[in-house]
Amino acid sequence: MPVPTQFERLRVVLVATRNPLNMGAAARAMSNFGFACLRIVNPYEAAFREARSAVGASALLANAEEYSNVADAVADCTLVVGTTAFGHRELQHPLRRLEYGARLIRKHLRSNRVALLFGSEKFGLSNADLSHCHWLMRVPTCERNISMNLGQAVAVCLYELVRDAKSTAQTEKPKHATAGEVERITEILLDSLRLSGYLDRRPVTAAEERIRRLVRRLDLQARDATIWLGILRQIVWKMRSQKTEGLSQPGDRKTS
Amino acid sequence: MPVPTQFERLRVVLVATRNPLNMGAAARAMSNFGFACLRIVNPYEAAFREARSAVGASALLANAEEYSNVADAVADCTLVVGTTAFGHRELQHPLRRLEYGARLIRKHLRSNRVALLFGSEKFGLSNADLSHCHWLMRVPTCERNISMNLGQAVAVCLYELVRDAKSTAQTEKPKHATAGEVERITEILLDSLRLSGYLDRRPVTAAEERIRRLVRRLDLQARDATIWLGILRQIVWKMRSQKTEGLSQPGDRKTS
Repeated sequence: MPVPTQFERLRVVLVATRNPLNMGAAARAMSNFGFACLRIVNPYEAAFREARSAVGASALLANAEEYSNVADAVADCTLVVGTTAFGHRELQHPLRRLEYGARLIRKHLRSNRVALLFGSEKFGLSNADLSHCHWLMRVPTCERNISMNLGQAVAVCLYELVRDAKSTAQTEKPKHATAGEVERITEILLDSLRLSGYLDRRPVTAAEERIRRLVRRLDLQARDATIWLGILRQIVWKMRSQKTEGLSQPGDRKTS
Repeated sequence: MPVPTQFERLRVVLVATRNPLNMGAAARAMSNFGFACLRIVNPYEAAFREARSAVGASALLANAEEYSNVADAVADCTLVVGTTAFGHRELQHPLRRLEYGARLIRKHLRSNRVALLFGSEKFGLSNADLSHCHWLMRVPTCERNISMNLGQAVAVCLYELVRDAKSTAQTEKPKHATAGEVERITEILLDSLRLSGYLDRRPVTAAEERIRRLVRRLDLQARDATIWLGILRQIVWKMRSQKTEGLSQPGDRKTS
């Protein structure tokens, strides 16, 4: 997946983050989904130092820009979106579900810079932080547990921004076995049923047609048909050889 | 968001997880998105104990079922899907992107049980684990960094299962100001431009029409129109009072 230039226009802004693991997790998700610009506002000093020096901290985290306030961190953006679990009716901000909000953000990113704000683990974004936002966005969590882990919330939001709605089966469809191959399997299976005495013990009408349909329902792939044919041939050979005793292995027949 | 019964049919299966924080994170994401059945295969003992006893570990984690092998953990399911960052071409498993795979899983969950497997942080799912799977699924990460944090991968996969493709603007559209309100603002703004001398210093043709269009472009909301009207009236009052000196405040006029 190549990184579209427009994703360079997104600023992920972490406000007052406390846990260095969450800063690292946010940076990792950004790197997974192709975003590069991380901004940190008023982090707990120790947490920021620890996150920067953590094993596995990417270049992205090392290049994170530090700000002392939200206004400066979003100053170059034309759209500022705050994430929230709660909504803030009293603030009269429009609150959009991630599926819809991400669509608006993607549209905006085509030619403009967008800041996406995430608040602290404990309190989220403050009313003062939110006053810098044009609108709010929430991940569609259950009412019973709406509060997400910060690193997971960042990952889910960024995933929604990059997901491809038109994605369909991209793997090659496996080739199916031909009718001829399936019929050869049917015949050798019938042989094995006769030799094993299966059909004697379970006499049914139209046994051959039933078995033929049973094999068709397997919907065998071409490569698997060959394997099944080999398995059944070996079994049939073994049962025949036990009947007559002392025959050589099927593989030996060429040399015998 | 009510929990659909079909989500109870999903088993999230963590295989050989090492880090208790990741087990906790997986449980938290399940709880966020309305899934309940967590199964743990061969966890590192200490990690599992620590995760269970961790502060904030939900009932979900306490109810997690422990298994010693993958076969038992998926035995009641009719579809088994393995997650992978890499794909395993040599295993000839179909590999599906999350967007498409989740659609198939959702369809299956309508009437059947599905197991979704996540491997260990370091090695992912082993070839032996994968041999229990019908197909594999991958989160669409960047080639430069395909490997996701386990807790974040679980969150993103479950989010994709619950996301609502038809989600659109659910917030009430704010009411716009009426033409009458906008015109009142235009008039008082023009007053303030005249009083402040703005129009004298920047004489333009058709100033009134220009200002009228400028105000229309603000696309004011009804509740904001009232506020702007108040602001402009106060400013105009102040400039008039400074001209004539000694006038009372606009609020005082009623009593004067």
